[in-house]
Amino acid sequence: MDTAVQHPTDTPPGDPLAGLTPAARRALDASHSVWLGPLKLDCGIELARHRVAYRTYGTLNADRSNAALICHALTMDQFVADTNPVTGKEGWWLSLVGPGRPLDISKYFVICANVLGGCMGSTGPLDINPATGGRYNLSFPMVTIRDMVNAQAQLLDHLGIESLFCVVGGSMGGMQVLQWAASYPDRVFAALPIATAARHSAQNIAFHEVGRQAIMADPGWHGGDYGAHGTVPARGLAVARMTAHITYLSESALQRKFGRNLQDRAAVGYSFDADFQVESYLHYQGKSFVERFDANAYLYITRAMDYFDLAAEYGGTLATAFRGSKTRFCVMSFTSDWLFPTHENREVVKALNAVAANVSFVEVETDKGHDAFLLDEPEMFRTLDGFLRGAANARGLK
Amino acid sequence: MDTAVQHPTDTPPGDPLAGLTPAARRALDASHSVWLGPLKLDCGIELARHRVAYRTYGTLNADRSNAALICHALTMDQFVADTNPVTGKEGWWLSLVGPGRPLDISKYFVICANVLGGCMGSTGPLDINPATGGRYNLSFPMVTIRDMVNAQAQLLDHLGIESLFCVVGGSMGGMQVLQWAASYPDRVFAALPIATAARHSAQNIAFHEVGRQAIMADPGWHGGDYGAHGTVPARGLAVARMTAHITYLSESALQRKFGRNLQDRAAVGYSFDADFQVESYLHYQGKSFVERFDANAYLYITRAMDYFDLAAEYGGTLATAFRGSKTRFCVMSFTSDWLFPTHENREVVKALNAVAANVSFVEVETDKGHDAFLLDEPEMFRTLDGFLRGAANARGLK
Repeated sequence: MDTAVQHPTDTPPGDPLAGLTPAARRALDASHSVWLGPLKLDCGIELARHRVAYRTYGTLNADRSNAALICHALTMDQFVADTNPVTGKEGWWLSLVGPGRPLDISKYFVICANVLGGCMGSTGPLDINPATGGRYNLSFPMVTIRDMVNAQAQLLDHLGIESLFCVVGGSMGGMQVLQWAASYPDRVFAALPIATAARHSAQNIAFHEVGRQAIMADPGWHGGDYGAHGTVPARGLAVARMTAHITYLSESALQRKFGRNLQDRAAVGYSFDADFQVESYLHYQGKSFVERFDANAYLYITRAMDYFDLAAEYGGTLATAFRGSKTRFCVMSFTSDWLFPTHENREVVKALNAVAANVSFVEVETDKGHDAFLLDEPEMFRTLDGFLRGAANARGLK
Repeated sequence: MDTAVQHPTDTPPGDPLAGLTPAARRALDASHSVWLGPLKLDCGIELARHRVAYRTYGTLNADRSNAALICHALTMDQFVADTNPVTGKEGWWLSLVGPGRPLDISKYFVICANVLGGCMGSTGPLDINPATGGRYNLSFPMVTIRDMVNAQAQLLDHLGIESLFCVVGGSMGGMQVLQWAASYPDRVFAALPIATAARHSAQNIAFHEVGRQAIMADPGWHGGDYGAHGTVPARGLAVARMTAHITYLSESALQRKFGRNLQDRAAVGYSFDADFQVESYLHYQGKSFVERFDANAYLYITRAMDYFDLAAEYGGTLATAFRGSKTRFCVMSFTSDWLFPTHENREVVKALNAVAANVSFVEVETDKGHDAFLLDEPEMFRTLDGFLRGAANARGLK
């Protein structure tokens, strides 16, 4: 690893992991992890050390040219293509990563790291604050999408990977892809931002704020200090998740899947029980989310998305972020995605075109809404496969 | 009032109003009110008496042919065209009702009643349950849109109004308009359902359920019995309102009004405070709603909307609801309304066309979202004005 920038990888003193929840601990134990740093954050605070928990699939080739970085979305994790140790479910992007898939791991070295601020093993509000010896909770510094990307860049330095073959991600993952392409243009051969935007819209900030208010309104939250109180803001976090989950689907998908179907009953019960299937489904989504995700991490990561405004980092002109870029871009949106609608993705394409960047744009016709990028969408995978094959040829990857 | 069906109008024994909040009491005191009943509800329960609080504007003409009934939306009230005694704000539909407006009160006798199950003076969960002597709270029977309409029909009986010149309403008000036209076709000369649907969609049920869960998760809710505990589920109700409020607007209106503008600061604060104007705006909407609305009433009325499925009342075929109707319909939708989108309104138009009803349909181009019906939309008012003039001529109203 002679090309690697050497970062200190020694573990900080004390037990920095003492605050992890059992779920976070399981995720960490099932991952590679490394202590990196220092990392200067956008908020001005410097983390002397931060831990990155990550998974890899496949083998890095001799000239280190076949690495594909996957950036995960808000509530996802590093378990892209193997069983999630917390939920027991299979990897969340098996349709993209695996044998015969667009990112075939016999050809590519696939990396995915839990984001900074997360709760699946990387440093976040569950970590011990070295200044106090207790959990960070809300004393954890605010992180941005750029901070997450800088943390990942330190991981790649550590792994000795100077240049990525590609960076891929949907939703908040797509924000990271855009940030990667802007911050490290020479390290990104191909960038695939999917169902995303170069800034978080007013409506999306609004939905996030509702979710945060629901968490903070839960008396079990205790100003973020629930660990010390032996509580969990379960109902607030469930409400936040239920609200968000509606935005991940489309009206027509909800109508098709559930319509006004009743749950285990022949007629409405004239009560506030979950008469309708869509209510039971949301309850399940809320409950299962609480079992796997940390409430404070949800606050921090939603805030990072709210703060994302790539143009603002470049004097207010998005095109400036990509000026001179040699990266090949594949931008993709979904017709029924109302959280990151096509027009937001198109703003990225316009900015890329304005600086004559190499860009393909595909709007996939689907009624599955924002979450389509996680689902089996043949047109999406044909497009990604074709784009990646072309880029691999250009890079000389066999 | 020889044409009037006589209902008992005596006040029930005891003090049935003892449970009203100060806001509900102020609303009642500023309204006409009458005790009516009995009223058999869809859930099977019969209310021996129910109180209707209502406002009227203008004068009923000699042949009782100029009455216009306005049906209000979820969180609105009877104060259509005069100062709201709770909020101190002016009437909520002054753009429709008043001198020189489509419903000019020198020509029409305008009536608006607080819905059954509400908290602005009509009987609802704040009333005293005669069986227990305490507030109904969650022992109040579930009400439906049809129950609300039947309660209004008893009010019209009491007022000696056999046939309405028109029934007008937006959103849940539009549901009542459709129910009026279906249940009492001979009593409705013209029907104007605006920004509504003949059934509540899966997505809308989902958003309502999230709001209800937020209220019920508030420890101040106490299973609905907050009055006895001296608490109010303020934070839960505020979260419910904030979520709902996002759905009343459009993404483009939020972007135009707020975008990513910051609130009283030059840069983001790297905190969970309301950095963005859209967050401050939502906080204000939540807070002011809590001051005027009762949480249990919110539960009941949202549930009534969820249960609305007019076709289901007529064997599953919406057209059957309107078969043989002589009512003139004016159906209206708004291009940017994603809560009650045009395609839902069009289903009503299709059903009306299927039975050769007299129907006009207008989709108004606006970026203001669902709430456009409450705002100054010149095209909407030109359309309503033209339709009402034509109908008035046909009815022989001068």
